[in-house]
Amino acid sequence: MPADLASLAQPATTRIVLVVIDGLGGFADAAHGTELEEASTPNLDRLVSEGAAGLLEPVGAGITPGSGPGHLALFGYDPFEYELGRGALSAAGLEVELRPGDVAARGNLATLDADGVVVDRRAGRIADDDAGRIVGLLAEKVNLPGIEVVLAHEAQHRVLVVLRGAGLDPHVTDTDPQTVGVPPRPPHATTPAADRTARAVAEFDRRVRDILAGEPEANALLLRGFDTHRELPSMQIRYGLNPAAIAVYPMYRGIARLVGMEVLAKAADLDDQVSVLQSHWDDFDFFFVHHKPADSAGEDGNFEAKVAAIELLDRAIPAIAEQDPDVLVVTGDHATPSQLAAHSWHPVPALIWGKVVGRDTVSRFGERWCREGGLGRRPSVELMPLMLASAGRLAKYGA
Amino acid sequence: MPADLASLAQPATTRIVLVVIDGLGGFADAAHGTELEEASTPNLDRLVSEGAAGLLEPVGAGITPGSGPGHLALFGYDPFEYELGRGALSAAGLEVELRPGDVAARGNLATLDADGVVVDRRAGRIADDDAGRIVGLLAEKVNLPGIEVVLAHEAQHRVLVVLRGAGLDPHVTDTDPQTVGVPPRPPHATTPAADRTARAVAEFDRRVRDILAGEPEANALLLRGFDTHRELPSMQIRYGLNPAAIAVYPMYRGIARLVGMEVLAKAADLDDQVSVLQSHWDDFDFFFVHHKPADSAGEDGNFEAKVAAIELLDRAIPAIAEQDPDVLVVTGDHATPSQLAAHSWHPVPALIWGKVVGRDTVSRFGERWCREGGLGRRPSVELMPLMLASAGRLAKYGA
Repeated sequence: MPADLASLAQPATTRIVLVVIDGLGGFADAAHGTELEEASTPNLDRLVSEGAAGLLEPVGAGITPGSGPGHLALFGYDPFEYELGRGALSAAGLEVELRPGDVAARGNLATLDADGVVVDRRAGRIADDDAGRIVGLLAEKVNLPGIEVVLAHEAQHRVLVVLRGAGLDPHVTDTDPQTVGVPPRPPHATTPAADRTARAVAEFDRRVRDILAGEPEANALLLRGFDTHRELPSMQIRYGLNPAAIAVYPMYRGIARLVGMEVLAKAADLDDQVSVLQSHWDDFDFFFVHHKPADSAGEDGNFEAKVAAIELLDRAIPAIAEQDPDVLVVTGDHATPSQLAAHSWHPVPALIWGKVVGRDTVSRFGERWCREGGLGRRPSVELMPLMLASAGRLAKYGA
Repeated sequence: MPADLASLAQPATTRIVLVVIDGLGGFADAAHGTELEEASTPNLDRLVSEGAAGLLEPVGAGITPGSGPGHLALFGYDPFEYELGRGALSAAGLEVELRPGDVAARGNLATLDADGVVVDRRAGRIADDDAGRIVGLLAEKVNLPGIEVVLAHEAQHRVLVVLRGAGLDPHVTDTDPQTVGVPPRPPHATTPAADRTARAVAEFDRRVRDILAGEPEANALLLRGFDTHRELPSMQIRYGLNPAAIAVYPMYRGIARLVGMEVLAKAADLDDQVSVLQSHWDDFDFFFVHHKPADSAGEDGNFEAKVAAIELLDRAIPAIAEQDPDVLVVTGDHATPSQLAAHSWHPVPALIWGKVVGRDTVSRFGERWCREGGLGRRPSVELMPLMLASAGRLAKYGA
């Protein structure tokens, strides 16, 4: 966005709800339409009939976004200007506060064979208890000269690793080879300033392997996504909003926190999330509601489960709409077509509903209909100014 | 614009007419379509049937443009690269030539109560005669040490104020609080270089209030939009055109002058404007015809009046088309939906007609049809290269 929205933001008493169906987008093939096209979504169809539809491209043509850029774009942060490493995302999700100078990485507990070759990047998706015990062991025994090591267990094989000390730099390559049959990669500094950090990571890797040598499953920790503390300008400062997040999964709670959202009480499922929305309705003017199951089903390659996850969300729409938001948006952070069992670059359907949005002629929510919609096809980062404008929160530009 | 049009501009004998229906865009709601969709526009429909249609976004997603950026974009000037303050626009409209170093602001004659609190920002929309007398009084009596003060009455409460002298800087905040019930704001310099100017503006405010102390209605002058002389590259240099403007209202005449257009004899209404076009047909190769009433009706929240203003323009199309332009474009500078009674961020329909434009399948002029059009949806600044190309005025790029 060339326009500086902060200079145009104007106060208002309006409320915006942004519902993100994680991995919403899909693609049609010879067998069937996209998951959203095939889903029965009477409530979303009603919203789109009364509002405007379109397609969003989260990062750019042909680019498959991770969760970080996908969400940052929806929150109006240019994903090229604001990059978040996996380490920073994990830390945010675990509520581990990174400090300036910290270097964080995402770690996978992994299985190496006797020759030091990776045979399972996720240590058999090790059970939480077992993983927790191993992380505790490492936290007790790993030490590096002059560097504090903070370890936090996320779930299963996933571990956050933070290195804290003077002169650290995150420009270090992953040790996670992202494949099996090869040894972990030696870390390399991509700038001279990161030489010491790369050596520390190599030493960390050696000591971890020594300590875990007797473990049958998890005998190494593969690191990826080295990153440091990022100071993102808050949504309060950029848009004059008082925003809140209602998300079940830690990473999305973390991303929300990074842009200044208040992260509301942890909800167990979508019903809970709607209850949280209702009980905090008077306290905030922007609500981010994150719905994960569509992405999980897509990642599992389960077409029917993704359809069901979308239909589940559809049934929650009346309770959300009943709060009478001024602007209600439903879209996704990226596509997760079940045919690919992975994130993809395909565009993501979006609908925006509100009194001054303007109606187009689209009456069903789905890729093939959104293509004809009044929003057109645009980068996801343009959604935020459209939401703000539709909520009367942007002043005129220029005389 | 990534492409440097100046390096591609090539001479031609073709003529382009750009008709700007001010505030053309609107939005559909439950009650009706947009003003343009509901208007009966057989002549515009014929043009669009023989040409191509699309939707323009003047400044960016969600951004509501003022008249300055809305028109600059249509003339092919990136509205972020070329910013115009209200003062510069007013000066241009009044044919007061700003010189390098001048600082200009838009002034409102206003009513303060005995406590110095603004009770009417427009002094009851004071009559022209009365306002003219007061501006004359101020021009005679206000003086600032080392600074020449130029005052020019626009209409009603609107006054142009120019400060002329060495070392002035326009980075001064408005004294107009843009609301009632508070005193005028003290001017602040936003850069140290403007300290002296801010002090001069404060002194100007004091002296104006002293001089007008006995006036019942207009006893202060609220200032906003401080700006300085802007040197815009002309359309002659950028495009090799010899352009003329046919506009009724001063501000649009002013904007046209800033980009190098010859501003033709003042016309009283659209019939007059068409006559001026006819009589100057052989003298220019680009004509900007500005039609204000659609915007005025939109600003008044009058749906039917905006429809009528569009239908009025439609009836003038045959006379314009009869001149046989090579390229005829009809669009708007921004949306002014009557539901909002204000400018808005909604996209603006556009049609381009000409022998080599190419026909799409759209046969009616209006937002819902333009969405399907051959021009697609694009930033307004891209219209100018399309007009030039369609008029055979852009050479091939690259070998």
